Amino acid sequence: MIGKNTIKLIKSLALKKYRTKEKLFLVEGDKLVTEVINSQLIISQLLVTLQFRENYEIDLKNIENILEVDSATLKKASLLQNPQNSIAICRLPNKRELPPKLNNSLSVFLDGIQDPGNLGTIIRICDWFGIENIFASPDTVDLYNPKVIQASMGSFNRIAFYECSFNTIHKIAKESSTPIFGAFMDGANIYTETLPQNTLLVMGNEGKGIRKDVEELIDRRISIPNLSTNASKAESLNVSVATAIICSEFKRAL
Amino acid sequence: MIGKNTIKLIKSLALKKYRTKEKLFLVEGDKLVTEVINSQLIISQLLVTLQFRENYEIDLKNIENILEVDSATLKKASLLQNPQNSIAICRLPNKRELPPKLNNSLSVFLDGIQDPGNLGTIIRICDWFGIENIFASPDTVDLYNPKVIQASMGSFNRIAFYECSFNTIHKIAKESSTPIFGAFMDGANIYTETLPQNTLLVMGNEGKGIRKDVEELIDRRISIPNLSTNASKAESLNVSVATAIICSEFKRAL
Repeated sequence: MIGKNTIKLIKSLALKKYRTKEKLFLVEGDKLVTEVINSQLIISQLLVTLQFRENYEIDLKNIENILEVDSATLKKASLLQNPQNSIAICRLPNKRELPPKLNNSLSVFLDGIQDPGNLGTIIRICDWFGIENIFASPDTVDLYNPKVIQASMGSFNRIAFYECSFNTIHKIAKESSTPIFGAFMDGANIYTETLPQNTLLVMGNEGKGIRKDVEELIDRRISIPNLSTNASKAESLNVSVATAIICSEFKRAL
Repeated sequence: MIGKNTIKLIKSLALKKYRTKEKLFLVEGDKLVTEVINSQLIISQLLVTLQFRENYEIDLKNIENILEVDSATLKKASLLQNPQNSIAICRLPNKRELPPKLNNSLSVFLDGIQDPGNLGTIIRICDWFGIENIFASPDTVDLYNPKVIQASMGSFNRIAFYECSFNTIHKIAKESSTPIFGAFMDGANIYTETLPQNTLLVMGNEGKGIRKDVEELIDRRISIPNLSTNASKAESLNVSVATAIICSEFKRAL
C-alpha cells in the first residue's frame, strides 16, 4: 500500500514548481511506463497493480522502489482521466549542455509553445523524422509537464531537448553556418522553396506566432500555402500540424 | 438572465443523445461564435455578456433569441475550462445527402476516428488544403461534439461532412472511377508514390487502424516513412498529424 504522502507527491508533480523542488516527474500509462523501465531513466518509485506485474516482466536495474497497489489506489493517485495499471515517479535528468555547433541536419527551435499537447506532439513528430535536436525558449511549456510526456508517447526520451534563449541558439547557428528558417503566415511557399538539410526551423507560439526580436534574426520566411476553396478560409493550422507538414517537406527529398 | 433549464440544456448538449433529441448543438468561444453568427446556421439562443456586445456588432438575421448574461452565469453554463463571452445554441442542420459521384479532387474517409480533438483537427486540415468532402463511418465521433467543433476552429462549417458506411462510399468511388488509398504502417512510401488527384484517402482509428473489411477494398496502401535515427523508434504518428502530412503530399504538386 502507499500512503497519503505518495498520492500528494504525485498530484504535486503536475506543477513545474514541485517537479523542480523534488527533482522528479511522472510517467503514466502502461506502454509508456514499460518504455521508461527499459530506458536509462531512474525510477524513484514505480507503482503497479497485480495486473501490470502479470502482463509485463519488470527489469529492476533502474528502479529504486517498486510498490504494488490495487486499482482503486492507483486510480486515486493518477492524474489521468482513464488510469491504467502503473505510475512511474522518475528522477529528473540533468539539463543537457548546449552543443557547441549544430549538426548537418534539420533542428527545431520552439518560440514560446504553450500547449503541452502541442509540445508533446511536436516531439513525437521530430522523433519520427529523425530530427535529433529540439531547442525551446525558456517560456515554452516544460518538457516534463505530464501532458507533454503523455502526448510525446515516449519520444520525449529519444530526442535531445534543450532550453535556451533564441540569442544563444542564433550565435551557435551562425558559427555552424546554419540557415535559420521561420514559419510565418506570409512566407515563401514551402513546396517551391529550396530547403537546405542543415536548417534551424523556428516555430512560433500558438496565438502570437514568432516574437518580433526573433523574427528579425530569421534568414528566410516560409509558409504552407492555403489551398482552401472556401470564401471564408481556414485562417491557420495548429502549430503541431504545421510543424509536421514543414518537417515532412524538409525530409521528403532525402 | 437565464434560468436553470437553459444551463441544464447547455450541459446536456455535451452528449450526442441530447443533441439528437433537441436537434441542437453548441458553439463556444467568441471568435467561433462570431463566425457562426455570420454563417448560414440558425442560432436558437445566443448568450452573450455585455463585453461581447461592446466588442462585436451582432447581425440578428439568423438568431432566434439573444440573451445578455453576466460573466458568472456564462461561466456556469459553459463547457469550456476557460469560458469567454458567448455561447451559441445552434440548430442542427439536416444531414447532407450523399453525392452520387465523387469530384475530381482528394476526398477523405475516416474509419472510426474516436478522439474529438483529432476529428476537429482533421476537418481544419481538410479545409486548409481545399478538401471539400469528408466521409466518416457511423462509429466515428460525432461532428457536433463540442470538442470537435472547438478543435475544427470554424472549419466544421466550411467543409461537407457525410456519415456513411464504407460499403456505400466504396460503391460511389467505383462508379466515379476514384482510386481508394489507405494509410497503413507498411504501405508504399508516400514520397515516391504516384498520388492521383481524385483519390479517396482512408484514415483509420487511433489505436486499431483501418478495419479488416475496409482494408480489403482498398486499392493502394501508403505510408509515411519512419526516418527516426533512434534504435527504439517512434512507433507511430498521431492520426491527425499523419492526415496532414499525407494531404500535404497529395496537394503539393498542384
